Amino acid sequence: MKTEIPDPPSAGPEGTAIPDTAASESEALVKDLAEQKDLHLRLAADFENFKKRSRQESEARALAQKESFIIELLPVLDNLERALAAGASKDSAQFHQGVKMTLKQLQDLLGQHGVESDDITGKPFDPHRHEALSQGHDPALPNHAVLEVVQRGYRRGAKILRPAKVVVNDLTASQPARHGR
Amino acid sequence: MKTEIPDPPSAGPEGTAIPDTAASESEALVKDLAEQKDLHLRLAADFENFKKRSRQESEARALAQKESFIIELLPVLDNLERALAAGASKDSAQFHQGVKMTLKQLQDLLGQHGVESDDITGKPFDPHRHEALSQGHDPALPNHAVLEVVQRGYRRGAKILRPAKVVVNDLTASQPARHGR
Repeated sequence: MKTEIPDPPSAGPEGTAIPDTAASESEALVKDLAEQKDLHLRLAADFENFKKRSRQESEARALAQKESFIIELLPVLDNLERALAAGASKDSAQFHQGVKMTLKQLQDLLGQHGVESDDITGKPFDPHRHEALSQGHDPALPNHAVLEVVQRGYRRGAKILRPAKVVVNDLTASQPARHGR
Repeated sequence: MKTEIPDPPSAGPEGTAIPDTAASESEALVKDLAEQKDLHLRLAADFENFKKRSRQESEARALAQKESFIIELLPVLDNLERALAAGASKDSAQFHQGVKMTLKQLQDLLGQHGVESDDITGKPFDPHRHEALSQGHDPALPNHAVLEVVQRGYRRGAKILRPAKVVVNDLTASQPARHGR
């Protein structure tokens, strides 16, 4: 900062200010104050511009990341198309294999982006990660074990992107409940 | 702003300042200046905090948008898995149909996110949107027409996400070139 707070107005022994000094000090202060206000206004304008720009940049960045993911996804479409085009002429087992490899490719892509799916059949039901669709009865498994995964769950690290939809073992029921959706 | 630039120190007819007024004016100015500097420092600190926070928020936002896209993509995986699980038992035509519908679902998802693919076979080759892999020779089509799409191109609006890889018609060649990759 180039301005300095000046010493208080010097006063004579009788307590009277020396007029010329006081007037020039006041002038300097008025100038400093005007400069300081100008500095403040410019910073406030910079701040506003930054806010506006960072909003736009944040949108552009989010879009770019989504686009980059979509570009990585395109080979999955290519392979499905190729499998389908070949499916009419090739034998069924080969088509099945082609589709299976495409699914693997899609799972690998999600894995590269930190998205995972756990095998939970037989594991304990966890209400934070699983959604119970219905109950079943299998005395060979513990109570509240997952009997069947109706729809896979996915997570990124500890964050649940989609809970698994499952059928849960209920050994307390006297009659075996229907096992399925 | 609560401070005002005061009038210049009032001067008597002989050009001398009135000491008491000048001193109190100076005091007020010193106070205003200190307040103004304080205001400026606080704004600068807010600005710094905003910069830091907006960087973090921008990252979180980009991640959230990608995750939300991935969540929309999960039913495609579900359907591929279902088609494959059923494919072993069901007849081949039904499996083919299931995979075809899954591909349609994936294309629709991309369409909802503004991602499109054009049918360009027979259309003029456009070096801004297409990538020529090789040349072919088909007198029934104009010179530089797209003869075959080896890999589909995708765009979002005018933005090319991936150029189409194509075989281009070349009628200037005296010998018909091989048509294919």
